[in-house]
Amino acid sequence: VPGILVINPNSNGEVTRGIAAALETLQGNGACRVEVVNLEGTPFGIESQRDVDSVALPLAERVRQESAAYDAFVIACFSDPGLFVSREATKNPVFGIAQSGMLAALALADRLGVISILATSIPRHWRYYRAIGVAGSVAGDEAIGASVAELSDQERVGALMMKTGRSLVGKAGADALVLGCAGMARYRDWLERELGVPVIDPTQAAVGLAQMTVAVRSAK
Amino acid sequence: VPGILVINPNSNGEVTRGIAAALETLQGNGACRVEVVNLEGTPFGIESQRDVDSVALPLAERVRQESAAYDAFVIACFSDPGLFVSREATKNPVFGIAQSGMLAALALADRLGVISILATSIPRHWRYYRAIGVAGSVAGDEAIGASVAELSDQERVGALMMKTGRSLVGKAGADALVLGCAGMARYRDWLERELGVPVIDPTQAAVGLAQMTVAVRSAK
Amino acid sequence: VPGILVINPNSNGEVTRGIAAALETLQGNGACRVEVVNLEGTPFGIESQRDVDSVALPLAERVRQESAAYDAFVIACFSDPGLFVSREATKNPVFGIAQSGMLAALALADRLGVISILATSIPRHWRYYRAIGVAGSVAGDEAIGASVAELSDQERVGALMMKTGRSLVGKAGADALVLGCAGMARYRDWLERELGVPVIDPTQAAVGLAQMTVAVRSAK
Amino acid sequence: VPGILVINPNSNGEVTRGIAAALETLQGNGACRVEVVNLEGTPFGIESQRDVDSVALPLAERVRQESAAYDAFVIACFSDPGLFVSREATKNPVFGIAQSGMLAALALADRLGVISILATSIPRHWRYYRAIGVAGSVAGDEAIGASVAELSDQERVGALMMKTGRSLVGKAGADALVLGCAGMARYRDWLERELGVPVIDPTQAAVGLAQMTVAVRSAK
Amino acid sequence: VPGILVINPNSNGEVTRGIAAALETLQGNGACRVEVVNLEGTPFGIESQRDVDSVALPLAERVRQESAAYDAFVIACFSDPGLFVSREATKNPVFGIAQSGMLAALALADRLGVISILATSIPRHWRYYRAIGVAGSVAGDEAIGASVAELSDQERVGALMMKTGRSLVGKAGADALVLGCAGMARYRDWLERELGVPVIDPTQAAVGLAQMTVAVRSAK
Amino acid sequence: VPGILVINPNSNGEVTRGIAAALETLQGNGACRVEVVNLEGTPFGIESQRDVDSVALPLAERVRQESAAYDAFVIACFSDPGLFVSREATKNPVFGIAQSGMLAALALADRLGVISILATSIPRHWRYYRAIGVAGSVAGDEAIGASVAELSDQERVGALMMKTGRSLVGKAGADALVLGCAGMARYRDWLERELGVPVIDPTQAAVGLAQMTVAVRSAK
Repeated sequence: VPGILVINPNSNGEVTRGIAAALETLQGNGACRVEVVNLEGTPFGIESQRDVDSVALPLAERVRQESAAYDAFVIACFSDPGLFVSREATKNPVFGIAQSGMLAALALADRLGVISILATSIPRHWRYYRAIGVAGSVAGDEAIGASVAELSDQERVGALMMKTGRSLVGKAGADALVLGCAGMARYRDWLERELGVPVIDPTQAAVGLAQMTVAVRSAK
Repeated sequence: VPGILVINPNSNGEVTRGIAAALETLQGNGACRVEVVNLEGTPFGIESQRDVDSVALPLAERVRQESAAYDAFVIACFSDPGLFVSREATKNPVFGIAQSGMLAALALADRLGVISILATSIPRHWRYYRAIGVAGSVAGDEAIGASVAELSDQERVGALMMKTGRSLVGKAGADALVLGCAGMARYRDWLERELGVPVIDPTQAAVGLAQMTVAVRSAK
Repeated sequence: VPGILVINPNSNGEVTRGIAAALETLQGNGACRVEVVNLEGTPFGIESQRDVDSVALPLAERVRQESAAYDAFVIACFSDPGLFVSREATKNPVFGIAQSGMLAALALADRLGVISILATSIPRHWRYYRAIGVAGSVAGDEAIGASVAELSDQERVGALMMKTGRSLVGKAGADALVLGCAGMARYRDWLERELGVPVIDPTQAAVGLAQMTVAVRSAK
Repeated sequence: VPGILVINPNSNGEVTRGIAAALETLQGNGACRVEVVNLEGTPFGIESQRDVDSVALPLAERVRQESAAYDAFVIACFSDPGLFVSREATKNPVFGIAQSGMLAALALADRLGVISILATSIPRHWRYYRAIGVAGSVAGDEAIGASVAELSDQERVGALMMKTGRSLVGKAGADALVLGCAGMARYRDWLERELGVPVIDPTQAAVGLAQMTVAVRSAK
Repeated sequence: VPGILVINPNSNGEVTRGIAAALETLQGNGACRVEVVNLEGTPFGIESQRDVDSVALPLAERVRQESAAYDAFVIACFSDPGLFVSREATKNPVFGIAQSGMLAALALADRLGVISILATSIPRHWRYYRAIGVAGSVAGDEAIGASVAELSDQERVGALMMKTGRSLVGKAGADALVLGCAGMARYRDWLERELGVPVIDPTQAAVGLAQMTVAVRSAK
Repeated sequence: VPGILVINPNSNGEVTRGIAAALETLQGNGACRVEVVNLEGTPFGIESQRDVDSVALPLAERVRQESAAYDAFVIACFSDPGLFVSREATKNPVFGIAQSGMLAALALADRLGVISILATSIPRHWRYYRAIGVAGSVAGDEAIGASVAELSDQERVGALMMKTGRSLVGKAGADALVLGCAGMARYRDWLERELGVPVIDPTQAAVGLAQMTVAVRSAK
């Protein structure tokens, strides 16, 4: 059975569990198993460019080591750390969730809104939207503005995401939303129903693209 | 079991069979059945803007009729005929293979080359690449230049596709190729191996995105 | 005497009369007669993608039938329905009022504001602005927000257009306005004088371009 | 009777006569007279940025002086010298032939080719295409490569324009051509018939837009 | 010793003195002397397109005359008047402060805010940002909205610049500011410290680029 | 005396010496010393994404350590490795030579050609040109196509650079060239004289911008 390895490049087990839960629904989706792992020795959260750059080589190294064991890889952090170096480390396809999430959303809509966690990530996101050629389709990228204390309070985070999503749809004119972080899929369905536009969990998008790619490549 | 309906909006049964064969590999890919149908009363091939426009309303009508029976729809023609009117006809997601194929390819590469069948389709394609915001990532769209007589000769078509793909990679600098037509998946693997870049069959891409979307929406 | 056929692809006779009145002033403008007709069997208004797509083939058929009798054609609906298929149906030039109106406005100004009737048309407009390469010059496209009941009240519509125009000029920074609908020319002069920026009626723009083209082609 | 003043900002009487001849066909086109004048004291040809800049203020001064006598102005040089300063000098609309010609061509086609006289003008043209927002629709701008001696030989110039037009259509993929100079209209019809794509004389385009605008503004 | 000539193309001696003061700090910066001059016979301020165009040829003439005496030239007005004609007048490099200021700011940041003096200059600025290819990186260009009487009141001007800068950073999302005028360097340091983003005086930027270019070219 | 630290993030002493030699000419350029160092423990050359990513954190660490000792930093590798993480590590400005070189070239020209060493770097370069907003001004990026053996042969490298530069100017239409590598300044003057367009050494450009910035910030 072919397999996809989803790597969470932070050390926050709760995020890893959130990712794994979000991918449950895709497990049946394919003759390929999907496994989610933590990359050890990484920051608790990817919050700065330093955090992003610090996990690039460890990610690529993990991808290199597992290259024979898995048919595709997903890097589960919305900054797509180490995406291009990981692609050098294997002949198998490597998907970044930011890139995949934005592209999958564009298959359903024209102008994307991104719900980010931290305001400090937004300039980095925009640089990346430009790099991958989708900036012209981004209506807005707004942070939920949670304090560190609030981030562990799911209800509070949900309320802030709803408020941010409403602003992106109502004011910035977004016709689809992308969750700008791994591990937030629990809010997807609720946001989608309340706001009336597609809401994309980027990890699910990347795994979906990986499953399609693996299935197609396995056939022959 | 949720289902996806893939509609070939031309009357060429061989194309429908080619599509169905290409999707075999994705059938196992999910707890959702994928069905491929012909839209009756349509042209034998979609070759002109007239052909494109003539199938728009019949496609939307078919989508409307099947809206309760399927969880997502795929329009399997590289001009994405009737995509936006079909989206009005159902609350379920509708994917066009041109849009989905281009976006899925961008999850793997930066500059796309499109192998088209007919030169006359290319201006229409470019207008669409601009409309959906991906024109800046298209390195080239080249037609294989087959005469009508040659199109039924698979070997000849394959040789022309290889030549066109080589030109797109070698001269235009494409780092991934998209097959600019439904029903050409049989050449995908061979082109990918020979040319050393990812080759995307757009119908497989659209179905992969649809499977992911359906699986995610079915969960709750 | 050469002739231009202006086709209103809806069944609303009042719109046709409004178009004809707006073109009176251009009748003297040329040794070419301008005729305005209704396309029968079409919706009362073009409000959805379905409406747009439903008139494409009838428009092309009409253009084909009249191809020998007229030297140019104008499709008088701001969604430019059937423009590209109509171009396949004749060797004579076919102008769409959305495309022509936007381009004519750019001959006078840098950043266009579009006054649309229905909010639901705006995503379709933007897709088209991108397709024809002018999206970068659009400062905004705003709907007047009239209820269906209000649309027959000219005074009410005028007041809403003025409010929308003021918003486009004052907030979005538009330095010219385009009326995003056929049959609204009666408000043009008043808006232009009040708001101090050029206001373009797109049907007049398309006919002006057609008159120039026909005159030039007739000479030899 | 309203009037349009077309100003040739060089001292070459033959160019002025060529412009006037090209506009003959538009004279019947409207209840508005079209007059063509030379701006005295200007260079024999506009070949350098110095030539362009040297005629800007004289053009604006002429426009200011004639502001009460004419309802619109056309600056008949493909570098659109003095266009923006002339707009400051009158409340009436002022059209530049480069801007108008490019926009009128885009009403008929997607990718423009420009036939320029001098290679040294091309960087200036591109800067201007970017400034007015049409650069993304320009497939190519190529000079005919005539020596100064050859420019007075109409047959030679024609042959070089045909060769350049063929290159723009055949290699650069242009689907319409714009003559990148005033006074070249005599080749328009021949190029259009031979090359099978619309060929726009920019002075005719600007006058056509001016006629429409004047007719519309005169009505009330 | 090589030299750079900075030309203020207006007759306002105070602006020239402001420029000279701002360049003091760069005098030690190089084995090349920096001289600042007024161009006589020019307007007191460059406020309209007429003012811009009126100084183009005198600037080029001055550059031509001094071409042997200086190794580089800087045109010290944010509209970059006469930049391209001056480049024709000498083999030495000529820098415009608008172009140089914007580019130097982009070496430090992603999204620029421009603090302009007059609202009427802003459309001209945008046209130029597009012409030189940086428009996509401009978050906003806002005028300070001073009346003529207020412009001689440094304290008042400072307060208005701070307010405008705060709006550009806080609302438009600028991450660097460019002073959209020569002779405003006295506010640079204060704005930078208060607003927490880099603030670029464009004349300093242009002279810095000129110093580097001259030093590199002098070496051999 | 303020100082600028130029960090070569590879272990090739010859490159460091080449950089230092290129900056000699700028030493007199300012009251600020310019020091060039090797970053130890780095690859011999930066050839892959892995090499790029491997030096990011060491660069940032070095910048952090020297933050009090220097007023600005320059990262002297054309992939600008670690630029954004280094900016997090200090309050002083950090310049990347790719970004600075491209921007400085745009102060002199419209369409840049980049002479790269390795073909494999080019996709990475383009991604970066898009990220920093200059891709629209890049006429081409071509590799010299040297084998590893040839790279130590200065004469051979020079001949290949000349050939590549000629192609960029003659075929791609570049009107300025940027050397796509640190340590190639020795060829700058020769290429510039032979090819007749400005040639920018990116390290000189970055140091020039840094010198200006430091001088301006030191004044108060």
